[in-house]
Amino acid sequence: MPSKGRISTESITLFERKMMHIIDIEEKLSQFDEYWSPKIVGELNGQLVKLAKLKGKFVWHHHDNEDELFMVVKGQLTIKLKNQDVQLNEGQFFIIPKGVEHLPVAIEECHVMLFEPKSVLNTGNVTNEMTLQKLDEI
Amino acid sequence: MPSKGRISTESITLFERKMMHIIDIEEKLSQFDEYWSPKIVGELNGQLVKLAKLKGKFVWHHHDNEDELFMVVKGQLTIKLKNQDVQLNEGQFFIIPKGVEHLPVAIEECHVMLFEPKSVLNTGNVTNEMTLQKLDEI
Repeated sequence: MPSKGRISTESITLFERKMMHIIDIEEKLSQFDEYWSPKIVGELNGQLVKLAKLKGKFVWHHHDNEDELFMVVKGQLTIKLKNQDVQLNEGQFFIIPKGVEHLPVAIEECHVMLFEPKSVLNTGNVTNEMTLQKLDEI
Repeated sequence: MPSKGRISTESITLFERKMMHIIDIEEKLSQFDEYWSPKIVGELNGQLVKLAKLKGKFVWHHHDNEDELFMVVKGQLTIKLKNQDVQLNEGQFFIIPKGVEHLPVAIEECHVMLFEPKSVLNTGNVTNEMTLQKLDEI
């Protein structure tokens, strides 16, 4: 049986069928509780759309080859840069250019949407207990 | 004088500086009124983030080489496909795979965020009075 939101079309590939769902951001966020564990909710042009719940402090890191977009969908997020803090509220986004050191911090629980290439590792140039080699798709 | 939301950092390029602003989606949408005229509000990894106000019917088209993401930030959008209508509400998004014919329709004014490669032409394979060769950055 097709899942909720599934679009039936003809003459498209299996990969395209997988993409062709209506994604409801709140509904997807209700499917998980873990912090710092981005879930893949979309793919296009070699880029991934991810949703994550954040609380507390992540780890200083950068991405050598990938720019990264953080959009706040609920709560507030601080992205610490080496010489400034970026304060993001609901409905705001910020793009971290490749190579720029950053540290996401959420004092209270915060929900974000991320846009970034498939090649991104969550902790960038750092490997530690927060590193996730493979993300779930939901 | 730095514009509102400007982040000052050292050791980053001019291109990166241009990227490093907090983007407030509502504030950006308040800067224009035209329908079917997407404005560029961000760039990352060869992709553009755009905001647009839609009302009425666009034109049937497809993009040969680009997948396209439509996210509704206000109102409702129908994306007609050849054999089905996709109804999107606020907080929902949908990815149109490359090659898939589609027709965006908004009965009432609708605000959307788009995520697509720099190479995308708004009317895809069609050129008509709605075609925009160059988009404004705001």
